Amino acid sequence: MSDGVFQDKTSQYQKRINAFMADVLDKNYPQSNKLVNALSYSLMSGGKRIRPLLSYATAEALEIDLAQADYVAASIEMIHAYSLIHDDLPAMDNDDLRRGKPTCHVQFDDATAILAGDALQAMAFEVLSYIDADPKIIVQLIRLLSLSCGVLGMAGGQSLDLESENKQLDKSSMDIIHQLKTGALISASVEMMGLLCTNCTDESKLALRQYAYDFGMAFQIIDDVLDVIGDEETIGKPVGSDESNNKSTYPSIMGLDDSKKAALSHSQNAVAQLQVLPGDSSYLQYLAEYLVSRKS
Amino acid sequence: MSDGVFQDKTSQYQKRINAFMADVLDKNYPQSNKLVNALSYSLMSGGKRIRPLLSYATAEALEIDLAQADYVAASIEMIHAYSLIHDDLPAMDNDDLRRGKPTCHVQFDDATAILAGDALQAMAFEVLSYIDADPKIIVQLIRLLSLSCGVLGMAGGQSLDLESENKQLDKSSMDIIHQLKTGALISASVEMMGLLCTNCTDESKLALRQYAYDFGMAFQIIDDVLDVIGDEETIGKPVGSDESNNKSTYPSIMGLDDSKKAALSHSQNAVAQLQVLPGDSSYLQYLAEYLVSRKS
Repeated sequence: MSDGVFQDKTSQYQKRINAFMADVLDKNYPQSNKLVNALSYSLMSGGKRIRPLLSYATAEALEIDLAQADYVAASIEMIHAYSLIHDDLPAMDNDDLRRGKPTCHVQFDDATAILAGDALQAMAFEVLSYIDADPKIIVQLIRLLSLSCGVLGMAGGQSLDLESENKQLDKSSMDIIHQLKTGALISASVEMMGLLCTNCTDESKLALRQYAYDFGMAFQIIDDVLDVIGDEETIGKPVGSDESNNKSTYPSIMGLDDSKKAALSHSQNAVAQLQVLPGDSSYLQYLAEYLVSRKS
Repeated sequence: MSDGVFQDKTSQYQKRINAFMADVLDKNYPQSNKLVNALSYSLMSGGKRIRPLLSYATAEALEIDLAQADYVAASIEMIHAYSLIHDDLPAMDNDDLRRGKPTCHVQFDDATAILAGDALQAMAFEVLSYIDADPKIIVQLIRLLSLSCGVLGMAGGQSLDLESENKQLDKSSMDIIHQLKTGALISASVEMMGLLCTNCTDESKLALRQYAYDFGMAFQIIDDVLDVIGDEETIGKPVGSDESNNKSTYPSIMGLDDSKKAALSHSQNAVAQLQVLPGDSSYLQYLAEYLVSRKS
């Protein structure tokens, strides 16, 4: 298939997850208030929806009902949105702009931003509890999501990342931090769909796990690369913010060219895993290849 | 039974939940780091463990395995601990002391306190996923917990509470705020145990719901009363902090005497519900009566 087909697919899935999440918000919180406005502002502010796209792409490759993917994708995007709100706070990364718009605490206030993040995390688990699946699997999904965003996942990674500011890290330390901070949730987007696949082989699940790992690594390296070379207007946040925060980045320890090569290599490793999957994995392949060519 | 028996029971259940949570932390996070230290510091800093006591007392009254109550009690206490950490932050209530010790962000730093709260919320849902029960019921437990601490529960209540600072509220507005901010999680401590009761009548579950509502109301009113008359050393935080934060309190709108009477009336309403329960509800009765006599 041509790239155009996949671009259309991307756009359709982005619309799909946005509509699904908007519907969750409308149905559950028909009365708006400051908290609902704040969390809606951040959750519905666009973004590439990479994690939901991964869940839908995995659903295609495993021949899983897209209606199930909606719940997984929404729960993960809610966790992602909460983490961005908290990461942007003055006490953390102190960012005023996100996707070209004022961050949640700038648009509202710090207290509301903290609570909006907290409420989004609870909402993620609530949404997952409504998925139409065997309750045994729902419990596994919830466990995997909680592990992915807790001490041994995203929150743990962010803590290590903050502790490492002003320190020169080696590559393996950086790999660990990023596997926790961003990799765990990216992996969950794929592996949670694996849990929903009742007739998948262990080989398929292992391949998905490896795909998600390599995807996550490529994603993070490219993120660091774009922070150096990206255009502020395109990526919607100040360029060079890592450097000004004295953060170790892949370009700072490997150089720009080797970082790009490493990202490409991870993307290729990810794609190489896809042969064993039962369904159509062409969209998972596209996403891994698109990743390393993205400009924002 | 004499009060002494119930005091011993309280002490034993406090030890039980502390040991259970310490075990969860030790097993899951054998390697300590700043984040683990921060969340352990807050979670294991003592406190009355009112919510776990309610869960154990309800287990007695419904003849439910205490081993199941451990998971419910721990998950709720983790949510409670996270909410205290976030509420104490400079952007929220800006409290330096909690239970006579420096608050989490003072002992560590603001960023770590935000992440410790975030990680504790994830941990609560993870712990619940391990409870030995029918997966259908586990999913219901997780849904109830998420509802209790999200927009329509604790986080929503805290947001309304912050918005109401410097405003004079009437009693019904205050009731709503407190039902969300503290009542929802107190109710969950009781109602989650009701979900675990497979042979309970609807009448029993309704009675528990009403008990928890009245318990929560009495709890909050007494909290406000103690903020006016309590002794700083006994309650471990600055007395009069509500007044200095310009918060409406029950004593400020009803007067001290009528507040005490209202608390007593809610406590009596709570106790009146207990007759229909199948098991021994004497400890639930004791907790509701102890509540209005507490000095801290």
